[in-house]
Amino acid sequence: MKNLRVNFERLVRDLEELGAIGQDPKGGISRPSFSLPDLEARRWLRQKIEEAGLLYRQDGAGNIFGRLPGTRPLVVMAGSHLDTVLNGGRYDGSVGVLAALECLRRIKEEKVPLEKTLELVSFTDEEGNLVGDFLGSRAFTGQLLTRELKTARTQFGQPLEEILQKAGLSVDSVLRAAGERPDLAAFLEIHIEQGPVLEEEGVSIGLVSSIAGKRYYQATFVGRSGHAGTTPLELRQDAFITLSDFALRATQLVARKYYGNTITIGRVLLRPGSFSIIPGEADFTLDLRSQEPESLRAMEEEVLGLASEVASTRGLSFYHRLVDSTEPVRTSEPLLNGLKALCQELGYDYRLLPSGAGHDAQILSAVCPVAMIFIPSVDGLSHTPEEAINPEDLEKAANLLLQALISLASE
Amino acid sequence: MKNLRVNFERLVRDLEELGAIGQDPKGGISRPSFSLPDLEARRWLRQKIEEAGLLYRQDGAGNIFGRLPGTRPLVVMAGSHLDTVLNGGRYDGSVGVLAALECLRRIKEEKVPLEKTLELVSFTDEEGNLVGDFLGSRAFTGQLLTRELKTARTQFGQPLEEILQKAGLSVDSVLRAAGERPDLAAFLEIHIEQGPVLEEEGVSIGLVSSIAGKRYYQATFVGRSGHAGTTPLELRQDAFITLSDFALRATQLVARKYYGNTITIGRVLLRPGSFSIIPGEADFTLDLRSQEPESLRAMEEEVLGLASEVASTRGLSFYHRLVDSTEPVRTSEPLLNGLKALCQELGYDYRLLPSGAGHDAQILSAVCPVAMIFIPSVDGLSHTPEEAINPEDLEKAANLLLQALISLASE
Repeated sequence: MKNLRVNFERLVRDLEELGAIGQDPKGGISRPSFSLPDLEARRWLRQKIEEAGLLYRQDGAGNIFGRLPGTRPLVVMAGSHLDTVLNGGRYDGSVGVLAALECLRRIKEEKVPLEKTLELVSFTDEEGNLVGDFLGSRAFTGQLLTRELKTARTQFGQPLEEILQKAGLSVDSVLRAAGERPDLAAFLEIHIEQGPVLEEEGVSIGLVSSIAGKRYYQATFVGRSGHAGTTPLELRQDAFITLSDFALRATQLVARKYYGNTITIGRVLLRPGSFSIIPGEADFTLDLRSQEPESLRAMEEEVLGLASEVASTRGLSFYHRLVDSTEPVRTSEPLLNGLKALCQELGYDYRLLPSGAGHDAQILSAVCPVAMIFIPSVDGLSHTPEEAINPEDLEKAANLLLQALISLASE
Repeated sequence: MKNLRVNFERLVRDLEELGAIGQDPKGGISRPSFSLPDLEARRWLRQKIEEAGLLYRQDGAGNIFGRLPGTRPLVVMAGSHLDTVLNGGRYDGSVGVLAALECLRRIKEEKVPLEKTLELVSFTDEEGNLVGDFLGSRAFTGQLLTRELKTARTQFGQPLEEILQKAGLSVDSVLRAAGERPDLAAFLEIHIEQGPVLEEEGVSIGLVSSIAGKRYYQATFVGRSGHAGTTPLELRQDAFITLSDFALRATQLVARKYYGNTITIGRVLLRPGSFSIIPGEADFTLDLRSQEPESLRAMEEEVLGLASEVASTRGLSFYHRLVDSTEPVRTSEPLLNGLKALCQELGYDYRLLPSGAGHDAQILSAVCPVAMIFIPSVDGLSHTPEEAINPEDLEKAANLLLQALISLASE
């Protein structure tokens, strides 16, 4: 079994076939969950699962599974997601699902004896195009709130219920998905790094030590607008200058005191938003991330405190609202040690690294040990049409997953 | 003649009638040039001019005149504009036109002997709703560029030519307006202050010593976008943090080195503009103003240099484009002295003050001596539905204008 390898040509063909679904005239791939291209990708995956002789199943959240039964019902699961951001790339999510598919196919073809059951998974709406990240894996692990989901709408105002109904699902079925979950021994996910570290170091395999938690805030400074020509600088309560002051000081604070954490202001809207009017209000988004729960909480408190302080010093008000939140998680030490040992056996270079981006594995960590295998992102790019990988990196990662699944299912 | 006063009740009735034209369901008054409400206001003003027995005339730029001939054709002109910003107030511009109308009516009623000719004026599109501020007064004084105007479009993409045609005008007629200008002895304009100074000091009359010049730039910092979770702070080329750094340092520079000048960033657009993506581009508007030509030029150069320096220090690029520009002007010393003397005779408190906002008088200063009379803005507000004045302030300003016109036309 130690010599078993994936059929890499077949995996590449699968990636090409899937990459043809959802091509966007504006560039890249647009395959948000339950869009027409996503429904087509789901049908395609179902066909691949059934052709491989795996047992197809979809749960109430639209998560898709392909099962290869072992002696025991306890499941070792591997996968990721098929949905993409708008104008995204071909690899984010897809490589994790298709590598798992290829591993299970090879294991079945070679009739590898399995003590535990193997299952591949494609989770619904990892990218949060509907109502926040990780809808599928959150439903699968019972981490959704009934009350919020019943009234949830997309950013375009469409009720979640309406979208689910088009796929033969409902909010009720989503909430029942956790009840359909088998007992899990482990969850493994291959994913592109979405950052520059592995490429810079020339390493093919990244073993993820921890996954960042995050806080998303929607925030506002409220001052006083006025005519740009008639209000002296020293009498202004300029919401943009206040935001600038906060942004610089908060970034310096995080860089100095919370090294390794990140703070990002990605969107800003000034009101009234005119050439010659001092902005009275500045709306902005605040993205805070950390690999350590304690550090995330302390940074969050200090950054929000700083915003209030900057506002009051300048005579403005500060308002904020938490819109999304995940906790940092450590991946499983035993799984990590197993993957390290396999890398050495296979002769693959690897390095440990934290993940700044969130992943389904993070959500799964609430119900079982998890591990993640990263492959380098060319130029560190993701979520764009230019997203790319080197094929040899994916081949190594898929073989590592194959050996890990055989090893975990044999115990 | 020294005892002649305006018929203030009539002026107030005029203001009320005009204020009923262009009321916006969203609040305030929306009367942009050549809109249906503006065309109604133009018809209303024509009727008032003709009822008063003044000679009505419209030039090729749609500027409206009401003439009271004197012995000589040399004109002493007074007025302002009837157009408003969207959701603006009842007084900005209107008080200047209607006070001039009332003065000419009284002078005609009392058969005051006139050596020079008097003319009231309402200039087209002072607010720049079409293609930049001061279209009418710039046309009147020959300060428009043919080439730019032929291809000019509004911010909504409509060709200027198309809008002008609806009012029976054309780009060619606009460009001919300067040729229809009479010889001018002086231009006087009453306007609301649009700032807090007069109200704070409890003074009814402001005599304007200078009018700020301005530079409008549309500018962009270009860095590199990236995933908020996977790009360490120290490796970022974050266009928003760069803009924040520039905004703070530029504001400090102007406050310290160019005291009295202003710098305003009123509109910001980050791209791609997403919660979890580092902004790779930051578009923003830059409004620079000064009362002194030399100071404006020096500040402009230093602020743009600072932007380039901040950009290059952080590894970004800086681009900028001048979109509008006016020069600071000093009002006429002899006119100012005449107004001061009249204030003393009339027993009116006054103070000298600079104007931070731009006005038609500034454009007129290219062709004749100009003076401006400010009345206090309640709470310093303008360009909003809440714009307000105290009637007694307007009455004093109108009487001051009346005496100034009589005095100037008698010489």
